[in-house]
Amino acid sequence: MKTVKFADDSLTLHTDLYQINMAESYWADSIHNRKAVFELYFRKLPFGNGYAVFAGLERMLDYLRDFKFSESDMAYLRELGYEEDFLSYLQTVRFTGTVHSMVEGELVFANEPIVRVEAPLVEAQLIETAILNIVNFQTLIATKASRIKQVAQHEVCMEFGTRRAQEMDAAIWGARAAVIGGFDSTSNVRAGKLFNIPVAGTHAHALVQAYKSDYDAFHSYAKRHRDCVFLVDTYNTLKSGVPTAIKVAKELGDKINFIGIRLDSGDIAFLSKEARKMLDEAGFTNAKIIVSNDLDEYTILNLKAQGARVDMWGIGTKLITAYDQPALGAVYKMVSIENDNGDMEDTIKISGNAEKVSTPGLKNVYRIIDRVTGKSEGDYITMSDENPQAEASLKMFHPVHTFISKHVENFEAKNLHVKVIDCGEIAYDNPPLLHMQKYAHDNLSLLWDEYKRSLNPEEYPVDLSQKCWDNKMRNIEEARAKVERLEQ
Amino acid sequence: MKTVKFADDSLTLHTDLYQINMAESYWADSIHNRKAVFELYFRKLPFGNGYAVFAGLERMLDYLRDFKFSESDMAYLRELGYEEDFLSYLQTVRFTGTVHSMVEGELVFANEPIVRVEAPLVEAQLIETAILNIVNFQTLIATKASRIKQVAQHEVCMEFGTRRAQEMDAAIWGARAAVIGGFDSTSNVRAGKLFNIPVAGTHAHALVQAYKSDYDAFHSYAKRHRDCVFLVDTYNTLKSGVPTAIKVAKELGDKINFIGIRLDSGDIAFLSKEARKMLDEAGFTNAKIIVSNDLDEYTILNLKAQGARVDMWGIGTKLITAYDQPALGAVYKMVSIENDNGDMEDTIKISGNAEKVSTPGLKNVYRIIDRVTGKSEGDYITMSDENPQAEASLKMFHPVHTFISKHVENFEAKNLHVKVIDCGEIAYDNPPLLHMQKYAHDNLSLLWDEYKRSLNPEEYPVDLSQKCWDNKMRNIEEARAKVERLEQ
Repeated sequence: MKTVKFADDSLTLHTDLYQINMAESYWADSIHNRKAVFELYFRKLPFGNGYAVFAGLERMLDYLRDFKFSESDMAYLRELGYEEDFLSYLQTVRFTGTVHSMVEGELVFANEPIVRVEAPLVEAQLIETAILNIVNFQTLIATKASRIKQVAQHEVCMEFGTRRAQEMDAAIWGARAAVIGGFDSTSNVRAGKLFNIPVAGTHAHALVQAYKSDYDAFHSYAKRHRDCVFLVDTYNTLKSGVPTAIKVAKELGDKINFIGIRLDSGDIAFLSKEARKMLDEAGFTNAKIIVSNDLDEYTILNLKAQGARVDMWGIGTKLITAYDQPALGAVYKMVSIENDNGDMEDTIKISGNAEKVSTPGLKNVYRIIDRVTGKSEGDYITMSDENPQAEASLKMFHPVHTFISKHVENFEAKNLHVKVIDCGEIAYDNPPLLHMQKYAHDNLSLLWDEYKRSLNPEEYPVDLSQKCWDNKMRNIEEARAKVERLEQ
Repeated sequence: MKTVKFADDSLTLHTDLYQINMAESYWADSIHNRKAVFELYFRKLPFGNGYAVFAGLERMLDYLRDFKFSESDMAYLRELGYEEDFLSYLQTVRFTGTVHSMVEGELVFANEPIVRVEAPLVEAQLIETAILNIVNFQTLIATKASRIKQVAQHEVCMEFGTRRAQEMDAAIWGARAAVIGGFDSTSNVRAGKLFNIPVAGTHAHALVQAYKSDYDAFHSYAKRHRDCVFLVDTYNTLKSGVPTAIKVAKELGDKINFIGIRLDSGDIAFLSKEARKMLDEAGFTNAKIIVSNDLDEYTILNLKAQGARVDMWGIGTKLITAYDQPALGAVYKMVSIENDNGDMEDTIKISGNAEKVSTPGLKNVYRIIDRVTGKSEGDYITMSDENPQAEASLKMFHPVHTFISKHVENFEAKNLHVKVIDCGEIAYDNPPLLHMQKYAHDNLSLLWDEYKRSLNPEEYPVDLSQKCWDNKMRNIEEARAKVERLEQ
């Protein structure tokens, strides 16, 4: 049996079954076109980091632009038993809503709306699964990359993870997210082509095995490649690999650009120091030492503390899978919906888990920047009809421990939401990837160092305006009262 | 700027840059068509499990069948600076080799060749990255699913992870792998369509929010869906959700098939027991309790120990990302290559890390099954010209602690490799997914329970034949001698 292929495989069906079931109920009750507002946010920063780096917008926009059930999608839904009246309707659904989103590379924090969707209820519902799938992964990897880059600092970081990535999309979109987070290049050639990312890589152990010796392999490699990095640990790093690399580099002189050597196993701290000595003694003081082998921000920090002599880091598994926390838990919650009278009414999700209670209403997020220090005082979530910039002084208070509060004056309130889709039309041009990287990098300078350290950072304030907080409390009370009425 | 799209985006470019660099060196030296043998294997079982479940073959075969650089691939490689002579050659490359592989659903263990590729050197090299990317992820998820199923036993297991998956391919191929490992269904509709997997799901909190009450939401859902599972934790599980589900089920009687309720938050052990009582008292003794919320084999085991009353498990994040170990470290190593005289010569990769030393030569893997007990005595790796079935007695010894040994008699030696590609032609029909699931399930009965427990299982023997072991030692000695000659 050959794999069943569908020439018109569409991502529109890339959703949970319950979304389609709910769509059917909305449609059957004729509430499917009621205006609804959903917000995408996560409740906890990943890796114990002090910030996250948002990524995934470009892919999300492509998905929403192309939203349309294909012929084979419809045939499959028919097979599942959905009735013709509903299917005829479903075939007409496109995404016609308005989306505000943070831009890729934006620094984002827990419990603030990263993406805000205003759309007919049925559309907003059907897109949930796919946009979470996209944003959760890409934001996770951009954040992990940023953590690693914070430790590697000026040294080059290369994404080498494809073979360990969670299938192919993760490899290519992960490589892209890594660049947004600060990485310099990827080994994945397809990612290089699709996203215009610099690609990096030289040769593997197999080359040395094919030629049965370091010497023949390095010579062969140099014959067709001017820029040479020799992998030196196939047989014995210090006895064979490094001396042979030096020998070949000397023999070939100006015929090649001897960039350096790569270490992929063994005690990297020790081997890199020894290799550095050997290279220096041979006169190759500019030759780089490139290191790979299950690296992440912790091992890099440790290797540096041990005085390892590394110029470039090749980072695979731990980055591309976000190994220490392989999922970001972003959710997508309804915060407002049109009622029978055509007015918008806020909605809330109560939960036994306190952190799962949502914040109702159509909201904006502002970054409050102190004009004197140039640093951010925190993010400030308001109802959409508020204008914090018009206030002379802002009272910012902790949304749980409300007694923790401060007054901020002489500030700039930057609205972090950009309108990216306007009534179904894409209203945003994706900047080049390196602009996103620079944007993330520049924005990190707005944060005090306390928020940026990789271990136990301070909690960056994400506060609710008084109006927003009051509205949340009112909604909680109303929901409670409803439950109590039910009990009586 | 719109996303750059390529109508002819091909997976052939889904490889590491160094593979193409090595291909160029092989070609320039005219050794690219030398026959080479590579083996794919992992060094350590994931999750501390006693076995792994192989998955990924179908996708790998699709990839190899379609292997061909597209026009835009060639244009990109030209941009990267590869020269025309090499590019002209590259454009002609297809996969023409022969592949032996285990079948999907096979139980696999550390350090045994799961896939064996015999192909012209350049082809075997170029495919490395993609097949590792495929097999590593899919095998990881099939294994995780099998672990979870071992704990859930006869209870239904549903894959619910798309929103937390590492991008879209991981969601769909992960759903498929979960079924191979023993899962019953997925929530991902596209995976259902592509792989003919049963799909599952009812409604989310948003439905209840849209109707502002459990009662109206459940009624609305029931209007279009005969099979009803009501999500009961939007406002208050025991005070609103469960009583309302019961009330609606009573009101609608035979008009619906009241399957049961779903809990997605709070204290599942407590809530499930209370809900069970309420359902039973209302006469709904057959109603099922379906549970989700960050479940895995550990939480399920604990919930069972607490007497939780759960009939069906919805498993998301922890399964689809293999949360506690999100990467399998399978590698792909050259074990033999044609020499200048046209003879095959074994190759080895030596390493400072002892477990990274490869086992040279073209090999087979046999499962040695005791004819009396019907249980497996272990796997036995031989050189390809050996026939263990012809032996009256097999000496099986540990490949590291060689003094640990046993003699096995009256056994059946089952060759685990199937020829799936013969000189470039697909020679294998993928069976239906449920056959793969049944194959894995049936094969688990060959294993003693000691290998199957989820915590601290016994190490299943994967032994080398004497000939294979001698050959490895000889190769290590030769490689060492070469390094020593270099030092003199």
